[in-house]
Amino acid sequence: MKNWKAHWHEIIFEADTKEGKLFDVILLWMIVISVVLVMLESVDTLNQHFGFFFNNLEWFITILFSIEYIMRILVLKKPIKYVLSFYGIIDLLSIIPKYLSLFIAGSHALIALRSLRLLRMFRILKLGTYVGESNKLMSALVASRTKISVFLFAILILCTILGTVMYLIEDRSSGFTSIPRSIYWAIVTMTTVGYGDIAPQTIAGQFIASIVMILGYGIIAIPTGIVSSEIAKQGSVKGTLNTQSCPNCSAENHADFAKFCYRCGERLEG
Amino acid sequence: MKNWKAHWHEIIFEADTKEGKLFDVILLWMIVISVVLVMLESVDTLNQHFGFFFNNLEWFITILFSIEYIMRILVLKKPIKYVLSFYGIIDLLSIIPKYLSLFIAGSHALIALRSLRLLRMFRILKLGTYVGESNKLMSALVASRTKISVFLFAILILCTILGTVMYLIEDRSSGFTSIPRSIYWAIVTMTTVGYGDIAPQTIAGQFIASIVMILGYGIIAIPTGIVSSEIAKQGSVKGTLNTQSCPNCSAENHADFAKFCYRCGERLEG
Amino acid sequence: MKNWKAHWHEIIFEADTKEGKLFDVILLWMIVISVVLVMLESVDTLNQHFGFFFNNLEWFITILFSIEYIMRILVLKKPIKYVLSFYGIIDLLSIIPKYLSLFIAGSHALIALRSLRLLRMFRILKLGTYVGESNKLMSALVASRTKISVFLFAILILCTILGTVMYLIEDRSSGFTSIPRSIYWAIVTMTTVGYGDIAPQTIAGQFIASIVMILGYGIIAIPTGIVSSEIAKQGSVKGTLNTQSCPNCSAENHADFAKFCYRCGERLEG
Amino acid sequence: MKNWKAHWHEIIFEADTKEGKLFDVILLWMIVISVVLVMLESVDTLNQHFGFFFNNLEWFITILFSIEYIMRILVLKKPIKYVLSFYGIIDLLSIIPKYLSLFIAGSHALIALRSLRLLRMFRILKLGTYVGESNKLMSALVASRTKISVFLFAILILCTILGTVMYLIEDRSSGFTSIPRSIYWAIVTMTTVGYGDIAPQTIAGQFIASIVMILGYGIIAIPTGIVSSEIAKQGSVKGTLNTQSCPNCSAENHADFAKFCYRCGERLEG
Repeated sequence: MKNWKAHWHEIIFEADTKEGKLFDVILLWMIVISVVLVMLESVDTLNQHFGFFFNNLEWFITILFSIEYIMRILVLKKPIKYVLSFYGIIDLLSIIPKYLSLFIAGSHALIALRSLRLLRMFRILKLGTYVGESNKLMSALVASRTKISVFLFAILILCTILGTVMYLIEDRSSGFTSIPRSIYWAIVTMTTVGYGDIAPQTIAGQFIASIVMILGYGIIAIPTGIVSSEIAKQGSVKGTLNTQSCPNCSAENHADFAKFCYRCGERLEG
Repeated sequence: MKNWKAHWHEIIFEADTKEGKLFDVILLWMIVISVVLVMLESVDTLNQHFGFFFNNLEWFITILFSIEYIMRILVLKKPIKYVLSFYGIIDLLSIIPKYLSLFIAGSHALIALRSLRLLRMFRILKLGTYVGESNKLMSALVASRTKISVFLFAILILCTILGTVMYLIEDRSSGFTSIPRSIYWAIVTMTTVGYGDIAPQTIAGQFIASIVMILGYGIIAIPTGIVSSEIAKQGSVKGTLNTQSCPNCSAENHADFAKFCYRCGERLEG
Repeated sequence: MKNWKAHWHEIIFEADTKEGKLFDVILLWMIVISVVLVMLESVDTLNQHFGFFFNNLEWFITILFSIEYIMRILVLKKPIKYVLSFYGIIDLLSIIPKYLSLFIAGSHALIALRSLRLLRMFRILKLGTYVGESNKLMSALVASRTKISVFLFAILILCTILGTVMYLIEDRSSGFTSIPRSIYWAIVTMTTVGYGDIAPQTIAGQFIASIVMILGYGIIAIPTGIVSSEIAKQGSVKGTLNTQSCPNCSAENHADFAKFCYRCGERLEG
Repeated sequence: MKNWKAHWHEIIFEADTKEGKLFDVILLWMIVISVVLVMLESVDTLNQHFGFFFNNLEWFITILFSIEYIMRILVLKKPIKYVLSFYGIIDLLSIIPKYLSLFIAGSHALIALRSLRLLRMFRILKLGTYVGESNKLMSALVASRTKISVFLFAILILCTILGTVMYLIEDRSSGFTSIPRSIYWAIVTMTTVGYGDIAPQTIAGQFIASIVMILGYGIIAIPTGIVSSEIAKQGSVKGTLNTQSCPNCSAENHADFAKFCYRCGERLEG
């Protein structure tokens, strides 16, 4: 019995066995399908034609997910920990709505709930191939956490100020009907998105808009600079040279693949 | 009495005591609320419903700010210095309008004045956590000041020229009604904002537009390059060389931590 | 006979002789012309006036390409290998349509086929001057393959989630008629393209849109960071490791400052 | 007489004397004014009111420029060299149109000619403060010349292919009326400008558009990477430290050109 649990625990929660990998891949495809399903159901024309098929597939996946969910609980020693974990809640929320739809008519709220399963997609980044890189990227972002938040603060303050200025000088007709709306415009412009649904018409407005654009165009350099230098650091330091030092001449900066000291020829341990 | 002043001075102007931190945080929230208030008041629909509530809250904040302003003046030895400082003037300008509104009907000009309080938000960047990073970013920008201004000059000249070219080849109907307007378009395009309110229609125009876009797309690399290399430099503090020269052989580019000249072995002073 | 083949093989497949270079250049110009031709034919107004001329030029180029194709087959020892290669198939597909047009009326499908010859343009990057740099760029991209794919995954997941959120909160009238369409909008916004054909109208929608924009504006830093650090590495590779190999065990990738082989401890000369 | 020439030569062509600097600054302001003038004249409303004033100012500047032009010729030993130089021709072209306007009614062609004086603005970048930095930027661009051109080639080929694909799958109604126009759209999208005057309507079209956007969003990393690594190189050239450590005190971070240990003064081997 114990073995049975251990065996399945390995399959479901780990990925170093063949079955474990297979399970992960199947699960991910199921998640992707379930997500695509939510999308297609939202397209009225498709829903009218394939509504019946969609509904059945939805049931099929929901039941599979239910089984998976129950399995996860069974094989764990402390299931409660998983149940209350982020993924545990998401997993539950992604199966409940369909069962609810039996009692309540499939309402807008249920679609909202169902789309929570999108969050399961992040499991993709947990795949062996990517976990390393994604961690690197994450750590690069985390390392420049403060820098970036400072940057965002500055952006928001700038947008607030510039948006207010535009609200004051531009006439309502061209879409600057309120300060929040003007700030929205400022963000749209500063980030170089530029929908064009709100655009300055007066000379003064266009002049300030130009400043906003060039500002945004220049400011984009800052986060890039921050992150690239972070990544560069990671890449160059760890990757090529390690931190061990020669036992004889205490020379440092040996290449990872070095077996002998490059300065005195002494054998390096480990 | 002295102590009382000293005590409050610490609370208001410093942030290394518990009370000091608390004061800063409360002040910042007050500022944010006051800013949000200005925004919401500009939304007509909201203003009609909650106008009365907004007005009272506005009064409440204004009075708090007044008290703060008076306190700052009281606790300082040379208040005049603060009163005439950038923040001093901003602080005053952010409370006056409300009092004026008693005598004058709340006019457009007063809104303009009131929004000056947005500038107080920059205090956020003065918070302990961020001050370090924001200084770093600032110094990175300052260090690449000349480079960036050269870059902006070049951009402006390019936009002027390309705008004029477009004005000459595009027909008025598609929005290129004057050179300034065409330059505005050039900036909108070069910075990849692209509102679409002015867009070339002729083949020739679209051809030049394509060039402008690819130019802008490539040029954006330059500020990024400038800033990232700056930030990267800061990151690799180890490698910084100072400007002192050897008293013996006047060799230069000594590392900051150098005690002896690397060329002649002479001891370096200081 | 053999020599004749060898001679032409050199001209057609290599570029280190004068004739070889000439052949490449002529071929490239032919390709460019043939591509331009396909473009111009698609412009109705032009096609009406110069249709006859276009047709003849098309024939002229097709025949030239046919000759080139036959030559390539003749001069090769194992032509089959070329015929089944990527370029071999492209070369064939770029001449067939015109001959087919004799039997079938020039249909839409043929245009599609004909435009496959666009792929021949990549030959430009095989030119001596560029091959080196383009390889460098490619290797930089390949080196950061996993990083970038992780990044794209994250983007797609984010866009899916944000698109769904917008679909739920925005009203259909402003263009968010289905989840796929909303995801399309999310991509358009996240990448700072911003057509404006779909744009949020509600306050909530605009608020989330702002978040998407700032996210996209910040996220763009990541690929840039990845690639720049890659390219930077390539630039500095020389600086860290040299190309000499150990006289004893012929190990390679020695650091510039290495005096002893890191693998066998042998002294390195020079 | 000689001295007189030498004196003025120094003022006009050099900037190391006080007068020389003054001359440059005045000249630049004149150029800026003349450029602004061309702009304002193109605004019909302004031209109707201030036409007379504009005309006189135009004459004033033209005469000043004429004097400057004549002076340049007089003070030079080989004026012909200047006359035929890029700036020589520009200087001439920027004064002729006004004189021509006496005989010919100020036609569109003359405006075109007049706007050539915009090119004089590049003189700004020749100012002492900026010349250094602008050269650095230029050399950075020149150094990555091949890389960037390869990059642009690739972009153009990609846009041609993607544009053609869109032309084939999208229906004419949504603006993809010809391949060149579709390529224009591809460039607009790839560079994240996104006017929205041409936007895909079909699902297939929007799907490919999404790919184009994400491609463009990722590709922008490449030029940035190229340029930043270039600039970084320039910046760090002086400051590079190697990893060898002193045999006596095993101090590290010696400059590449170090012959003696900076800490203990010991001679460094190699």
